[in-house]
Amino acid sequence: MKLLFLGTGGAVPRIDRRMPAVYLEDWEGHRILLDAGEGAQYSLLENGISPASLDFVAVTHEHEDHILGLPGLLSTAKMMGKEITVLAPRRLSSYLSKSGVRVASEIADRRLKISCIEMCHTTETCGWLLEWDVGFKLDLSKVTGFPKQALTKLIKGEPVEVNGRLILPEEVADPGHRRFRRLLYTGDTAPCPRAWSSVGWVDVLIHEATFADDVEPARAHEEGHSTVNDAVEAARALNASILILTHISARYDDLEKHRRAASYNFVVIPEDGDWVFVRF
Amino acid sequence: MKLLFLGTGGAVPRIDRRMPAVYLEDWEGHRILLDAGEGAQYSLLENGISPASLDFVAVTHEHEDHILGLPGLLSTAKMMGKEITVLAPRRLSSYLSKSGVRVASEIADRRLKISCIEMCHTTETCGWLLEWDVGFKLDLSKVTGFPKQALTKLIKGEPVEVNGRLILPEEVADPGHRRFRRLLYTGDTAPCPRAWSSVGWVDVLIHEATFADDVEPARAHEEGHSTVNDAVEAARALNASILILTHISARYDDLEKHRRAASYNFVVIPEDGDWVFVRF
Repeated sequence: MKLLFLGTGGAVPRIDRRMPAVYLEDWEGHRILLDAGEGAQYSLLENGISPASLDFVAVTHEHEDHILGLPGLLSTAKMMGKEITVLAPRRLSSYLSKSGVRVASEIADRRLKISCIEMCHTTETCGWLLEWDVGFKLDLSKVTGFPKQALTKLIKGEPVEVNGRLILPEEVADPGHRRFRRLLYTGDTAPCPRAWSSVGWVDVLIHEATFADDVEPARAHEEGHSTVNDAVEAARALNASILILTHISARYDDLEKHRRAASYNFVVIPEDGDWVFVRF
Repeated sequence: MKLLFLGTGGAVPRIDRRMPAVYLEDWEGHRILLDAGEGAQYSLLENGISPASLDFVAVTHEHEDHILGLPGLLSTAKMMGKEITVLAPRRLSSYLSKSGVRVASEIADRRLKISCIEMCHTTETCGWLLEWDVGFKLDLSKVTGFPKQALTKLIKGEPVEVNGRLILPEEVADPGHRRFRRLLYTGDTAPCPRAWSSVGWVDVLIHEATFADDVEPARAHEEGHSTVNDAVEAARALNASILILTHISARYDDLEKHRRAASYNFVVIPEDGDWVFVRF
């Protein structure tokens, strides 16, 4: 999976830190934009990605820094003959729909599900949970002699009949292997235990970290935002393999304070224009 | 006067041609943005200009490519403690005003007047006419022996009494010299004779030239746009000293066709990021 951080800033722009937008391309070819800060379509173009090649834009909430790039992006795509579906929280979604935008509240593709997880911000905010069905990895010792067709079905999670016996995929799967892969993109949020318990676990957590540890956590939370520590705690609660921090306040000239505060096994703090490649 | 062309494109963005926005800084220190295409605030920042340093943003019409940069720009300025006044056509102005934006239909500063000239586009569009009062240039042979105070007043256009006689500035002015300097920024427009006759003359004409001469003029006009030839004719009608062409369609990979078609005394076709310095 490829992630391109087009904008890693918050509401106040910096030359080196644009407003939030993350481009995601999975192994199935899905192309998704998470949030659409002002200029997102320029950033895509600068990276050789046509706005019209996007399948979905999932915006977390209606604050300007997360949506100002949306109208231009949709117009450009439309001029190129592509109508992009936008995922957004309920209220924003109904507003967009009235303005003629094609909206959806969730996506349930054959292999990919995208759904809204209610976050803890100052306004209705969807963290977007992406869940890929990567199928069962079979324990080869348990399927010796099975016809190839049966194996394909089992991998996809379908039961099969072999030699007159019904075989469930769970019975012959590698027990250490998980069928799903999950990524959660929080958007703006204060610490949000109810979201973590509703999600349970993820592989990749892209969490906002507006502030490092030089700001009183209480102040951050009051503004509906998180510190690096809060993001680390969320990653622990979700047992994330990879924690990616973004939405860095313009007060920080570099990422030093964030780097020092980020005590997690595997943490990435991208800058604008950085690609992050994830192999599950 | 300094002009910085932040975006020289039209509705379809290119990496090398952003949406319309021209920054203008005059000798009095006025800082004005003409149109505010998406990302205008980034372009300003990239050129070391703080969005909060702007006095006015004058937008020509409500089409997306001319205004998508407005909300972000105003927010950023507000966060920096500056409320920028926006000039816009009537309908857009009333919409902006309802959204809490400080609007004005024209500016009449002591030295600078900014007013709307109705253009010929597909929607209500203001070309913005900027007129500077640079005062009278006096014929020195006619004012020998005048006290310094009297000269200052005459230059500013005020009558004075010298040795018991009322002197009007016109009487002692250099007859070859004009009191005003004028710049017209058209925004989007088809050929618009009524606008040219209402304006009369300008020093600088910034005219749209969406198309060169490879497109049927009729087609350009139908879309409410102009060709290079149309712009040249407008410059002739207005007796402009300098013609600047902008709003170049994304179909053109370079400016060759525009350059070849632009048969005018003094013509400039800037690219994104180009400064144009004008000395009157």
